[in-house]
Amino acid sequence: MTHRQRGLLLTGALLLLFACGGTPSEGPASGPASDARNRQDWALVIHGGAGVPRDSLSDERQRAYLASLEQALRIGIEILEQGGRSLDTVEQVIRHLEDDPLFNAGKGAVFNHDGVNELDASIMDGATLACGAVAGVTTVKNPISLARLVMEQTPHVLLVREGAESFAGAMQVERVEPSYFFTQGRWDRLQRIKQAASEGGERGTVGVAALDRHGDLAAGTSTGGLTNKMFGRVGDSPIIGAGTYADNTTCAVSASGKGEEFIRHSVARSMAAVMEMRGLSLQEAADRFVHQKLQPGDGGVIAVDRFGNIVTSFNTPGMFRGAADAGGRFEVRIWQD
Amino acid sequence: MTHRQRGLLLTGALLLLFACGGTPSEGPASGPASDARNRQDWALVIHGGAGVPRDSLSDERQRAYLASLEQALRIGIEILEQGGRSLDTVEQVIRHLEDDPLFNAGKGAVFNHDGVNELDASIMDGATLACGAVAGVTTVKNPISLARLVMEQTPHVLLVREGAESFAGAMQVERVEPSYFFTQGRWDRLQRIKQAASEGGERGTVGVAALDRHGDLAAGTSTGGLTNKMFGRVGDSPIIGAGTYADNTTCAVSASGKGEEFIRHSVARSMAAVMEMRGLSLQEAADRFVHQKLQPGDGGVIAVDRFGNIVTSFNTPGMFRGAADAGGRFEVRIWQD
Repeated sequence: MTHRQRGLLLTGALLLLFACGGTPSEGPASGPASDARNRQDWALVIHGGAGVPRDSLSDERQRAYLASLEQALRIGIEILEQGGRSLDTVEQVIRHLEDDPLFNAGKGAVFNHDGVNELDASIMDGATLACGAVAGVTTVKNPISLARLVMEQTPHVLLVREGAESFAGAMQVERVEPSYFFTQGRWDRLQRIKQAASEGGERGTVGVAALDRHGDLAAGTSTGGLTNKMFGRVGDSPIIGAGTYADNTTCAVSASGKGEEFIRHSVARSMAAVMEMRGLSLQEAADRFVHQKLQPGDGGVIAVDRFGNIVTSFNTPGMFRGAADAGGRFEVRIWQD
Repeated sequence: MTHRQRGLLLTGALLLLFACGGTPSEGPASGPASDARNRQDWALVIHGGAGVPRDSLSDERQRAYLASLEQALRIGIEILEQGGRSLDTVEQVIRHLEDDPLFNAGKGAVFNHDGVNELDASIMDGATLACGAVAGVTTVKNPISLARLVMEQTPHVLLVREGAESFAGAMQVERVEPSYFFTQGRWDRLQRIKQAASEGGERGTVGVAALDRHGDLAAGTSTGGLTNKMFGRVGDSPIIGAGTYADNTTCAVSASGKGEEFIRHSVARSMAAVMEMRGLSLQEAADRFVHQKLQPGDGGVIAVDRFGNIVTSFNTPGMFRGAADAGGRFEVRIWQD
């Protein structure tokens, strides 16, 4: 990472020169050239949630998470290397993470206060700003795919609860009994947290951001929310602009953390805005919100810009994450470096 | 308006000078002084929806709308003149508009495809960025007040459907039978639109933005959505950052129009962002989104900035709206000037 850090310092210095000497510019096209120099044909970044405390994971569990993240990366790489679309990449990689009970999304979703698994997801196409989302579904095996259908098959962006379920029926997506989402560990955790009369601090949300060979960005996010959350609570994951945003002119972002804080600051959209409006680099944009606007412990973001630069930025001890690009980068991590 | 237009031209010229001569600035504090020169002790702007076609309203109906908007303004003025809070102003004025069957919010909400009135609302406090929202409620007489309770009485921002209903029960807010929301005109319209197999283009959403004597901004929005909308569809009105945003450092905004477009562009938050990040005036920020990012016919916004400047900007033939401030401004309008 030392070489990379030097690169970032240089980027920062160039940006500073640019910012001091120039007038406010309209778009990122006039941003620092260094952003474009390392242009990648494709790039992929994923997360499996921020907020995991270091002492809470056995070595064995850590290996399991890293192995699943690696597998997720490989699913995405195969699509992107063959010239597939970033949107398909986002959907397919998130489906893998939803099917893995390790993550708080799909199969591994946490329980709300009433012992129900309520799932939320969203997806956005940076090429067209098309977007779709679902919130509060309880029988849809892969909410991310339902979110994509909302985007492509309806004039709407967000469908919630029975409306989303009824749409799932019409679209014939795979349904499951609510018991499919039962996992003993999550159930035990609900009981512990109910006894403590608090809400769980899970940040097990999953998300993906990708740039494909066509220059198109896409992002998506999927979650089971917070253990012991109030019935009907919707966090940032299905909120376009808060937990998910993608715009080919700037970046694709997926967030994970205390959803309410990400909604309050419209984090995903604001990152794109500060790149577009102030010419900030992806790293600066991410750090501005994760380390300046949000509070320590709130969570983090993953993001990729139109040049294939990848950023993971978080203010928690760890965030399950992985990154890969056409230049050969391939890494999965849990903790702060 | 000629004097006002000259003022805007001057503001624009000053901004241009500022933009060409200065370096990118951090906050609006360094924005053009002309914004602050007309500083008002308090300011209030309201809307009853954009999108009404000119030939669709009899003179009598027009008078009824204008009378209700005037009454709404007076409710807000009384609170603001006495030094009350912008947040209370937003809530109380929206309650009036929700209770009036003329508007597509509360009592006058339109019907979804299944003949149900599903209501959405949100509110935000610019002083703290605290915010609350509800979506898909069917028995709550005043959704805006429930949104405020979500903000003040829960750790969450958004509660949907049964979760919001159950919270309404716990908070003992006024409930009504779903039949309370039945109005013959809305019902007849649903039947006509179902026959045409289209979705209604109502923009009857209501919203309020206010600055109080303490310098605090607040905004709120409430709606019944679109006639014949899919069950469970949620538009921009309950989405913080899309239909509603307030931040004391910039502005308070409420939007009305094709919700999906306002979500896609995070219009309310983006207006605040472009003021903060590029030093644009409130008018320029509104016009940038309403006339550049959105398409003709999509809708509009009302907004007030921290100096008490008021803006109404829309790309539809009309928008029900009203504005008042401590300097004696008091006006209600429907059409483009």
